[in-house]
Amino acid sequence: MLEKYVDEVIKGERTIRYHIEESLFCGRSAFQKVEVVQTKELGKMLFNDDLVMLSEKDEFIYHDMISHIALFTHPNPKKVLVIGGGDGGTLREVLRHTAIEKCTMVEIDEMVVNACKEFIPLTSSSLSDPRAELIIDDGVQYVAETKESFDIVLVDSTDPIGPATPLFGEAFYKNVYRILNEDGIVVCQGESPYYFPEMQQKLCSILSTLFEKNLVYNYSNMTYPGADWSFLFASKGLCPVADFDSTRVEASGLEFKYYNPQIHRASFAIPNFQRQSLRGLLSSVEL
Amino acid sequence: MLEKYVDEVIKGERTIRYHIEESLFCGRSAFQKVEVVQTKELGKMLFNDDLVMLSEKDEFIYHDMISHIALFTHPNPKKVLVIGGGDGGTLREVLRHTAIEKCTMVEIDEMVVNACKEFIPLTSSSLSDPRAELIIDDGVQYVAETKESFDIVLVDSTDPIGPATPLFGEAFYKNVYRILNEDGIVVCQGESPYYFPEMQQKLCSILSTLFEKNLVYNYSNMTYPGADWSFLFASKGLCPVADFDSTRVEASGLEFKYYNPQIHRASFAIPNFQRQSLRGLLSSVEL
Repeated sequence: MLEKYVDEVIKGERTIRYHIEESLFCGRSAFQKVEVVQTKELGKMLFNDDLVMLSEKDEFIYHDMISHIALFTHPNPKKVLVIGGGDGGTLREVLRHTAIEKCTMVEIDEMVVNACKEFIPLTSSSLSDPRAELIIDDGVQYVAETKESFDIVLVDSTDPIGPATPLFGEAFYKNVYRILNEDGIVVCQGESPYYFPEMQQKLCSILSTLFEKNLVYNYSNMTYPGADWSFLFASKGLCPVADFDSTRVEASGLEFKYYNPQIHRASFAIPNFQRQSLRGLLSSVEL
Repeated sequence: MLEKYVDEVIKGERTIRYHIEESLFCGRSAFQKVEVVQTKELGKMLFNDDLVMLSEKDEFIYHDMISHIALFTHPNPKKVLVIGGGDGGTLREVLRHTAIEKCTMVEIDEMVVNACKEFIPLTSSSLSDPRAELIIDDGVQYVAETKESFDIVLVDSTDPIGPATPLFGEAFYKNVYRILNEDGIVVCQGESPYYFPEMQQKLCSILSTLFEKNLVYNYSNMTYPGADWSFLFASKGLCPVADFDSTRVEASGLEFKYYNPQIHRASFAIPNFQRQSLRGLLSSVEL
């Protein structure tokens, strides 16, 4: 039998080869190549354009970290917008908070959603929740045109290549600011301080001119190339550390495999080289 | 030209292929295969038995994190023992603290030391410091026989396969306890909570029966397979959070690319699944 694998190439220098048991789905949408494979070590995995989007084994880290920091910082979130996140994992975590009345997910690529609905119920099953609204559309256009407003916007994007590129631009974030309510928070996939420091600088720079609070927090998962990756946190005033009431986590009755109040605060501690790289672009925070 | 690479295989399922420009050294010692290569992305890299030991680009993370947590927790460290750490990077960080009178490094494999001395001065250059004492010996035997005592022991070991296996055993740590002074601290490479949870449990279990305080802290670097890796921290009484005087970091005048007081404390925040896995084995800590 021929060996099957998917190769993810990091900066043209390092190849991470995922040995696969079975290819479950492979299609080419208008936007990208979409592939779902079965692996032994990491369960099912989703690749877009040969870049790892998720594995069943470690998706809990990313999805806990993109969602619960904002959801437990905002005192009373009811309406959440997810941009991207076609696998459904972010929406799933949002809807575990029973006070959420509606979670709108705007994904540009229906093929990703359908592939995950069929093959990765672990992340996609909450799409059938009555509080979930799925819109297949360009997130950039959606935030420019919508008349709705939100308490939290989560930008669950791929890297700034291909369809996700405009999600890293100023026009997009101006509209995110406009559609956020008074206590509004936006969290976005902030790339890696090691591999994409300029992109992180650019995003922080955009957010710092628009928002009152602008911070970065780090996490690390198994299937992104080693070392910390970042989320950017921006808000119209709420601080994820000073305004965080940790008793709400236990009171929620929710159980998390990764997230807890200590991780919440600790994730805002960033290494010196990253602090240096983002100097002047971040709000101060007392840890 | 043929493509050159080194393959690191993770759990037999995932291969990380490092594309190399030049092989600088490759030898087989009594203990392992030792290889130094030049890469474009990550600078020079050291592999033992085809497992990444370090890269020039990210070694600062590991070496900051193995050394400075203990060095800034202990109020007055003067004598430090490094077990393993043949590349010299841990010893280098220890000796940056001017109050250190002597740092003894016991490495079993002289070939690692010599290869790093010749090809990776970035980590090995401090071996010529007059306060450095290099002993080529089995660390297990050394701690069993030495009459010296230390304030801090740093166990900078490879994975528990090959020559490092006994460094993960009870007999070794009983002797470490014996040679530590009253305020003594030991920090050891604690493997990954994702890939080696049983090994981490076993080590914590050994340390918790011997030491007063027993904690785990996490970090993440570029060249270990993705997600957090751990160090174990055990002491005869000192707590790395409650007894940490963060003003000493600035007062030291030292500059770090990774470590800072926020990272020091934050690294002790561990995810729920890891907390669960080590339940009953860790001291409590107020973050």
